[in-house]
Amino acid sequence: MSTIFEKIIAREIPASIIYEDDIVIAFLDISQATKGHTLVVPKVAYENLFSVPKNTLKHTIGVVQDLALAIKTAFNAPGVNILNNNGETAGQTVFHYHIHIIPRYEKDDITLRFTNHMSELTKEDYSSRVEAIKKALNQLDLMP
Amino acid sequence: MSTIFEKIIAREIPASIIYEDDIVIAFLDISQATKGHTLVVPKVAYENLFSVPKNTLKHTIGVVQDLALAIKTAFNAPGVNILNNNGETAGQTVFHYHIHIIPRYEKDDITLRFTNHMSELTKEDYSSRVEAIKKALNQLDLMP
Repeated sequence: MSTIFEKIIAREIPASIIYEDDIVIAFLDISQATKGHTLVVPKVAYENLFSVPKNTLKHTIGVVQDLALAIKTAFNAPGVNILNNNGETAGQTVFHYHIHIIPRYEKDDITLRFTNHMSELTKEDYSSRVEAIKKALNQLDLMP
Repeated sequence: MSTIFEKIIAREIPASIIYEDDIVIAFLDISQATKGHTLVVPKVAYENLFSVPKNTLKHTIGVVQDLALAIKTAFNAPGVNILNNNGETAGQTVFHYHIHIIPRYEKDDITLRFTNHMSELTKEDYSSRVEAIKKALNQLDLMP
């Protein structure tokens, strides 16, 4: 099932394209959550972070870094968020891997709020979480 | 000025360390915004995205990908956000570059809210933003 990003890449629908190479394309997010809000998207339609090949991922983050600096410079933005949502629960709406570059001008131009749960947690909660992640790393045969 | 991350890397203060290699270290965010919330941090104290060398950045995102899959697997999380805040305005609190891996279990376990400004913007607003970013890319001598 093709998403809107594939149609943008194929020039079947218009977009505000900023940059393109063999591997990725970058264009303004039509919502413009803030001025200059940009998406960097691999041209191959990987669904999310878990399906992007490492070489493509590494190229993509390099382009994100350069574009983030250009966007920050162009609009004199004091801050920049880099965000990637994977899964509907995480706010993903287009199921084609993409990274948001969100320049920030004020502390409340977008809402990003986390709760600190430290006071509810024991030492054992922390250590059991570490062990569960290490076990999964092992089982998935990821990293040494 | 040394941050808390340098003290963690030097083992001067404890942390729930999950992974470490020559270039990066990963440990639980003490706030545990959600169960398994993890930070991936280059060992050299780069302030933010704009000062990380590309090789280090690429290595870091590769580790983020593997750890994100392990965390998702360990806790059966349907979603994962990857987030990097640069600048106080963007919510950065420790001025040593780091990437958050935030597994998501429910749509409201953290708050991530953006406003869609499309209806307020003209075609010219989009095109002038694209041109401003392209001009900055050129002036910064970034990318072809």
